[in-house]
Amino acid sequence: MTTPRPDARPPADRTPRAGIVVTGTEVLTGRVADANGPWLAEQLRAAGVDVGRVVVVGDRPDDLVAAVDSLADHDLVVTTGGLGPTADDLTAQVVADLRGRPMRLVPELVELVGEVVDRLAARRGWNGGDAARRAEMDAGVRKQAHVPEGASWLAPVGTAPGLVVPGGDGTPPVVVLPGPPGELRPMWPDALRHPVVAEALAGRQELRQATVRIWGPPEAELAGLLRDLDRDQPGVLDPVEVTTCLRDGELEVVSRYAAGAQDAVDTLGRALLGRFGDAVYSPDGRTVDDVLGERLTERGESVATAESCTAGLVAGRLADRPGSSAYLRGGVVAYANDVKTEHVGVPAEVIERVGAVSEEVAVALARGARERFGATWGIGVTGVAGPGGGTADKPVGLVHVCVSGPDGDHPRRLDLGGGRDAVRRRTVVACLHLLREVLAAG
Amino acid sequence: MTTPRPDARPPADRTPRAGIVVTGTEVLTGRVADANGPWLAEQLRAAGVDVGRVVVVGDRPDDLVAAVDSLADHDLVVTTGGLGPTADDLTAQVVADLRGRPMRLVPELVELVGEVVDRLAARRGWNGGDAARRAEMDAGVRKQAHVPEGASWLAPVGTAPGLVVPGGDGTPPVVVLPGPPGELRPMWPDALRHPVVAEALAGRQELRQATVRIWGPPEAELAGLLRDLDRDQPGVLDPVEVTTCLRDGELEVVSRYAAGAQDAVDTLGRALLGRFGDAVYSPDGRTVDDVLGERLTERGESVATAESCTAGLVAGRLADRPGSSAYLRGGVVAYANDVKTEHVGVPAEVIERVGAVSEEVAVALARGARERFGATWGIGVTGVAGPGGGTADKPVGLVHVCVSGPDGDHPRRLDLGGGRDAVRRRTVVACLHLLREVLAAG
Repeated sequence: MTTPRPDARPPADRTPRAGIVVTGTEVLTGRVADANGPWLAEQLRAAGVDVGRVVVVGDRPDDLVAAVDSLADHDLVVTTGGLGPTADDLTAQVVADLRGRPMRLVPELVELVGEVVDRLAARRGWNGGDAARRAEMDAGVRKQAHVPEGASWLAPVGTAPGLVVPGGDGTPPVVVLPGPPGELRPMWPDALRHPVVAEALAGRQELRQATVRIWGPPEAELAGLLRDLDRDQPGVLDPVEVTTCLRDGELEVVSRYAAGAQDAVDTLGRALLGRFGDAVYSPDGRTVDDVLGERLTERGESVATAESCTAGLVAGRLADRPGSSAYLRGGVVAYANDVKTEHVGVPAEVIERVGAVSEEVAVALARGARERFGATWGIGVTGVAGPGGGTADKPVGLVHVCVSGPDGDHPRRLDLGGGRDAVRRRTVVACLHLLREVLAAG
Repeated sequence: MTTPRPDARPPADRTPRAGIVVTGTEVLTGRVADANGPWLAEQLRAAGVDVGRVVVVGDRPDDLVAAVDSLADHDLVVTTGGLGPTADDLTAQVVADLRGRPMRLVPELVELVGEVVDRLAARRGWNGGDAARRAEMDAGVRKQAHVPEGASWLAPVGTAPGLVVPGGDGTPPVVVLPGPPGELRPMWPDALRHPVVAEALAGRQELRQATVRIWGPPEAELAGLLRDLDRDQPGVLDPVEVTTCLRDGELEVVSRYAAGAQDAVDTLGRALLGRFGDAVYSPDGRTVDDVLGERLTERGESVATAESCTAGLVAGRLADRPGSSAYLRGGVVAYANDVKTEHVGVPAEVIERVGAVSEEVAVALARGARERFGATWGIGVTGVAGPGGGTADKPVGLVHVCVSGPDGDHPRRLDLGGGRDAVRRRTVVACLHLLREVLAAG
């Protein structure tokens, strides 16, 4: 009854630890989802660095100081955000003050940042005639070209350089990175290999990662398998950190481990295959989208959809993958009943007799999609997404889906929990897996 | 060049401060997005409580201790997650140890939690015959029925009760809440009105919130308007905390303020309307989905789609809203060119002559959708979502959309940045706004 919980076993050795500070009131209040904290945590862990905490903090100097200070027991602190050209972008200044390092103007950076700003202005069609705007831009360039004394800068990807501020007096070094993921991510390798950072993280040991994806089993079954493994081969998984996550019916098992533990991970992989068999749809970390896309492309087959309650989301998901035009023909959003009849060929009599949410209609939608679009495979979807429209016989969450192909029809009934969004989202995932299973069988 | 930044002005008075601890390795590593931290931050802020930091921490006792300790300078700490029935659900025990309060079994809770567990087991069709399973379940119930000495419990929504653990010796009280949002959210009002919490947050003043949504203007223009307001009426916005956020072209302006500042917020609202006019599509916080849905329903009008690069996502979005069957007829996912011709009536000759990504094809798609589905309004979409398929003439990010209706065609060209996902997502939002504008004009 709690959230999906991992079975996390830290590697036995002492590994260096980093803490992450994410700045931004918009993140703290949830208006913008934080893309940087989890990404950096993953990078650090893959690099053999333990991540103790991610601290999210608003755009106030005192809070930022307290957040960096709260990670003083770590070997390294990484901050993201607050490096822009305006006065309320205050991370560099706060870290400089905190470490007692006055800001110095770096002429090389004035030039570098200035060029980027000019290029951006030109692209936006600004000709430089407005003196006030020119002055504002110049001020921004100069602000971003300031670096705390004794710190190094990391080459900017956008206009903001990153910083590596050395530690001292028992405080850890601080890596200061910009907020936009498109600027932060390309800068990260430079940060990680900087000598100050390398020294702070001495003793780290790069970790491998293996992901196995399974469709269907409840998380409790996986927990049971891990317990059984531990009983039969005590300690076999000790050198592996296993994290599990259940999402829309897909169970993801991630192992992180040092090279020496490859055998243990192989043992786990065999145990998963032995217990869950064909439900292990991806022993190598590929997503169901990739598995489907590759199989359809190999076989030169195509797919079309006819969707009622998902109203285009299955087709939209099939087109998420670049190159999907090789196999996605198209589809019909058959929301109104007369659209089901006129545009997909579902007999009005069937809808009348058994209702729009029925196996018969799902089958007719799948067949109609296949035939009308000349596709190898047709997917049909009809269901009660809610919140209204449910009855005792056909409650909210009842969805009928079907895949039709050269070998006939493969209908499936889904009984889904959650609200309207969850029902529709889970239906999309269930459709992809039904098609995957039918393809695997054929 | 940094992330969208708010212009955040804290209210002048000293307000009580709370810190939030989110537990879970799956959240720390980004496998699961944290839904609780931002939600609690919003609730606390609306209740007049300042949120200093959100700390995300994995499932290790030491890290959890350090996280709670790191918030010792706050008036209240709220934790989420780690209250399940198994041994690795350790939040209650860690907080009990930290505050020196031994765990006591609460017989009333054994009964309460036991009933919930039995009900869940029955719903899953388990008849209770397996003794080992029965013992495991009983152990889970007893674990969840333990409460630190001197602490209060909050009635469980799932199987896990919440806890209110008093502070003392200069440490703040801790509210311990379960991880699943469906259990945490209904429990929150009880937590907030608990006497220990009320005392810790004494002096808080409930805040009002007003949201204005604007389509189109860059964030810099809004920053300019706020500066101008401050120049013309110095200090007028001081009692208001204004947060702005730009997302897929939609600019959201949120004001949070005490009742006495209503005039200032009204002034801001008038200034926004004065500067941005009809681009202010929602002066009252409604989403574009709501604005569109309500307008179409009022007018008794309907809509149909024909989508290429978005492949159903526009129709899927139109169906997000409960009650959308009142106006969404259906649509065609016209991914392949021959589908555009056969199923929407786009002349093959036009595709041949000007290419599939062109204003002509967007118009033909919109007209075809409207006519074939008998809808008042048709929406057509065709574009280069990337990463492949771009040319010098038609680069990745070029999208043509069109709304056709009784008054003719309204084509629009979009030049979008970002990757495949961003291009498709922004196209969906742009289509909703184009239809909204056409409806507003008609």
